Amino acid sequence: MSNPLIDDRFVDFLLDAVHPLDAVLELAAYREHDREMCAMYLDSLRRFAREALYPSYAPMDVEQPTFEGGRVKMHPRAVKLWPRLVELGVLTAARSEAVGGFELPRVVSLVGNLYLMAANGSMMGLVGLTSSAAHLIEAFGGPEVQGLFLDRMYRGEWTGTMALTEPQAGSSLGDLTTSATPLGDGTHAIRGSKIFISGGDHQITGNVVHLTLARIDGAPAGTRGISLFAVPARRPVDGGLEDNDVTVTQLLHKVGWRGLPSLGIAFGERGDCRGWLVGEPGQGLRAMFQMMNEARIGVGAQATATASAAYHEAVHYARERTQGRPLAERGPTRAPVAIIEHPDVRRMLLRQRAIVEGAMALTLYAARCADFGRHDAPERRASHGLLLDVLTPIVKTFPAEYGYESCALSLQIHGGYGYTTEYPPEAWLRDQKLNTIHEGTTGIQGLDLLGRKVTQKGGGGLKALLAVVGAEIAAAREAGVDERLCDALQSAGERIAAVTMILGARGMQGDVHGMLGHSHDYLTAMSLYVIGWQWLAIARAAAGRSDLFARGRRAAAQYWFAVEVPRVGPLLDLCEAGEDSYLTLEPDAF
Amino acid sequence: MSNPLIDDRFVDFLLDAVHPLDAVLELAAYREHDREMCAMYLDSLRRFAREALYPSYAPMDVEQPTFEGGRVKMHPRAVKLWPRLVELGVLTAARSEAVGGFELPRVVSLVGNLYLMAANGSMMGLVGLTSSAAHLIEAFGGPEVQGLFLDRMYRGEWTGTMALTEPQAGSSLGDLTTSATPLGDGTHAIRGSKIFISGGDHQITGNVVHLTLARIDGAPAGTRGISLFAVPARRPVDGGLEDNDVTVTQLLHKVGWRGLPSLGIAFGERGDCRGWLVGEPGQGLRAMFQMMNEARIGVGAQATATASAAYHEAVHYARERTQGRPLAERGPTRAPVAIIEHPDVRRMLLRQRAIVEGAMALTLYAARCADFGRHDAPERRASHGLLLDVLTPIVKTFPAEYGYESCALSLQIHGGYGYTTEYPPEAWLRDQKLNTIHEGTTGIQGLDLLGRKVTQKGGGGLKALLAVVGAEIAAAREAGVDERLCDALQSAGERIAAVTMILGARGMQGDVHGMLGHSHDYLTAMSLYVIGWQWLAIARAAAGRSDLFARGRRAAAQYWFAVEVPRVGPLLDLCEAGEDSYLTLEPDAF
Repeated sequence: MSNPLIDDRFVDFLLDAVHPLDAVLELAAYREHDREMCAMYLDSLRRFAREALYPSYAPMDVEQPTFEGGRVKMHPRAVKLWPRLVELGVLTAARSEAVGGFELPRVVSLVGNLYLMAANGSMMGLVGLTSSAAHLIEAFGGPEVQGLFLDRMYRGEWTGTMALTEPQAGSSLGDLTTSATPLGDGTHAIRGSKIFISGGDHQITGNVVHLTLARIDGAPAGTRGISLFAVPARRPVDGGLEDNDVTVTQLLHKVGWRGLPSLGIAFGERGDCRGWLVGEPGQGLRAMFQMMNEARIGVGAQATATASAAYHEAVHYARERTQGRPLAERGPTRAPVAIIEHPDVRRMLLRQRAIVEGAMALTLYAARCADFGRHDAPERRASHGLLLDVLTPIVKTFPAEYGYESCALSLQIHGGYGYTTEYPPEAWLRDQKLNTIHEGTTGIQGLDLLGRKVTQKGGGGLKALLAVVGAEIAAAREAGVDERLCDALQSAGERIAAVTMILGARGMQGDVHGMLGHSHDYLTAMSLYVIGWQWLAIARAAAGRSDLFARGRRAAAQYWFAVEVPRVGPLLDLCEAGEDSYLTLEPDAF
Repeated sequence: MSNPLIDDRFVDFLLDAVHPLDAVLELAAYREHDREMCAMYLDSLRRFAREALYPSYAPMDVEQPTFEGGRVKMHPRAVKLWPRLVELGVLTAARSEAVGGFELPRVVSLVGNLYLMAANGSMMGLVGLTSSAAHLIEAFGGPEVQGLFLDRMYRGEWTGTMALTEPQAGSSLGDLTTSATPLGDGTHAIRGSKIFISGGDHQITGNVVHLTLARIDGAPAGTRGISLFAVPARRPVDGGLEDNDVTVTQLLHKVGWRGLPSLGIAFGERGDCRGWLVGEPGQGLRAMFQMMNEARIGVGAQATATASAAYHEAVHYARERTQGRPLAERGPTRAPVAIIEHPDVRRMLLRQRAIVEGAMALTLYAARCADFGRHDAPERRASHGLLLDVLTPIVKTFPAEYGYESCALSLQIHGGYGYTTEYPPEAWLRDQKLNTIHEGTTGIQGLDLLGRKVTQKGGGGLKALLAVVGAEIAAAREAGVDERLCDALQSAGERIAAVTMILGARGMQGDVHGMLGHSHDYLTAMSLYVIGWQWLAIARAAAGRSDLFARGRRAAAQYWFAVEVPRVGPLLDLCEAGEDSYLTLEPDAF
């Protein structure tokens, strides 16, 4: 096996020493589980990822879904893989026993998913959408709608989608116009068009349930008028199913994620489409946003996994490919060396590792926050929740943006061969680009972080972040990690706190641009800081060891602190100074 | 016309005020030309680019070349476009009248090519390869080989290729094994395999001439044993052509540049392939490198042009697409605005402009250096040549690396639609990636800049660079440009000089890694500095003006100096400190 997709030893190290799983398993809710059971679950997913999912990745990328006679067909391999995925329990691993789940800690479920995502993002897209859609119904739906849909979705008999985006509104959900007219029997007639509906039709299961945002007749304009509906492609009637007037209008030709169809869908073209309300009228966006935060962690995990697969491919290639000679011994009689011997190739590999493993540690930490936020002692839950809120836009964005660069480095290491479709890096590079766009673009994440997450509730989220980073710095000092790293992270945190105060004060005074004009730079600065924190934690866990594994991680920590952490200050300077080049420039000046 | 590809006003501004063309036209060699004639040439190319080449770009990207019965077919549109391109004079615009050229200044030829490259890189690839291959024969070939090939290539009756790379050797040309056996009649029997041969076969013209590197029997190992041959697919015999045993073995499936076939080619599989020596035996690499430097400027120009097309597409989209509301007026009753009203979208556009127009100014300056290097007073030519040597790896790399980011921003601005193949940014993003690889990867450019260009001839090239930047700083001060920009560039230059001295001294002491271990960071630092210089020149030329055009350029200059020039110092710190994270890490630690 040439590409492990994810490094098992690093995952074990994360769970053993960096962010110990044992602390999670001590929560009362997880007392039923032990490390062995978690290890068995992870093992089964690892094996399936490497032996079944990954071999289907390239075929599903090349032979894309087709659209004929109004129906979408996915690759035949997808049809065979789906029931095996369901059987592994991935739809319900972290759900409660009440809905047939294992109630595994989210951190375990996330780590397992990383393997599956690295192996075949399109298949995992279908898993994630179905699980999330069912979870929405579980969390907000009444007994009737749960009775109709929940079991069948969690059992993988029907799949789910998120039907949010409309062509004219894009990310601006408040402008959506899909309508819902009460029919008197508790259902609503749905009418409207949605776009970018991933997994919106296929031949894998008998039905697709679209979790759809729509506006009930007479509802107010904007986000407060939006409600959530379960709209199946075929509706349950008397124990059977009948057509529900849901039409695929378009199969989009995507840059990547080519195994998973993305569709334009019309609801109620013939006036005969029914939706079941999920939650209260007007609360659709609230419900969707709870799910959205989970989905954003999922995007970060997928981005991390994609970058990881590309990184391991590059390591493998750099070891196998011989070309050129060491800088100090260039004579033609010297035999060519493996390109990993060239310093600049190792630079690209170490940068990839710093991005991939830093992102993985962070994503795992975020899942752990979710576990503590649900199951820690009640008085401590709020703090975990606030911390997770702050981390979410970073977990979503850093792996997507830096992971894109990381995938590009994998292609670059492959040289001219990397520029052909015979080698996989170009496909991962294509896949990765979506992650900076879907579930809220990078621009939107910046506004979310600075305009909402770090300032809400008296800045409690930021305080919680600074506290856990402070604790890690103390632990790192204790473990004997290089003081310069600890000091650098300490200073960066103090600067973040100070600048956030300044920006927040501007917002309070109504200076919206003064506060948010550099939200992108703020998000980047926070990301570099947070990933610095992760590398400090990794260095702390590796302290005192002199083996290859530990040396390789210390080198990546050193790299991150030498190259990226020093950028935090200058980025915050831009925020504080309110550098106004693009803020004040008129649109006509382009 | 929605996408102008290149901004005519900016080009005129460059030629009028930033790097005045009049100074070039005053050279004795160009006395025959005036601005009007240059303008006519540019106008004809602009029109052709927009009206003929660009409409063929998407079809040629989608319907790729085919490979059947051993022969490659390009898109039918390519067959029609080729004679029209030849008629426009692009093959010989900058060549001497002796070979049928116009002897236009290179700067004019380059600007014209930018339009054609932005419109359709694949077609221009065929132009560039043919023109360069012919130029090699013109510069190094004896009368016989010139008589056989030169006219037919410059007239576009036959096309040319560069056949350097071999599968096992890649960038390490010294390891190539293609052999050449003297046949006694002045020709050599060629035998070997080449890969990544762009334009290596097609149905457009009657013949293809491969400028091929091979090793004459008994030649020494390494680069000194390499000679250059013209190897036609069909060889001239008695006024006719006969098969020359050149076989296409493979059509590579590329990520981008899909209009231009890239091939594996076998010479002499039946032992009946003849090559004509070009230049002296053993001098093949020297000859190829003269051409390579020109080709590297060409790569930079292509990368600039591709990023420019993507930038203009993004501006257009950002003006047309309405979505969301201003940060300060978010109510649902407010009508949605064009996304260019959002600060973060303007950030992405201004960053693209800073990259695209900065790269364009630099590329144009490099072409101008080539003009002065050939035709200035003899005592000044060497200095222009050294300056061009130093600029070449930067001109090659900056537009490729930053242009890739710029193309990604264009896709990002298009949101979910940008992730579909219905919109052009994804195609330019694919095209752009090649530019960091071919004609020497970014890693190789870093070694070339630091290991050769800035240190050779007593550091004369770097001195020449610092002198012209110093003169620009003085001119900018005189024109009233913000002193902070001038001071920042001055300091950056002083730091570059100091660190280069330190690194050079390490090299002299045999500390190769201490010198070259951070050649990538050095190249990046130099690039940011050199592009800063271009933006200072643009700001100087726009000084005193208050119109939209000037404000838009001042904003980009301000942006570059706020965001990128401050990175020069920290990057040089890494070089000076010899930060050793990846330098000392063992390959097994990955």
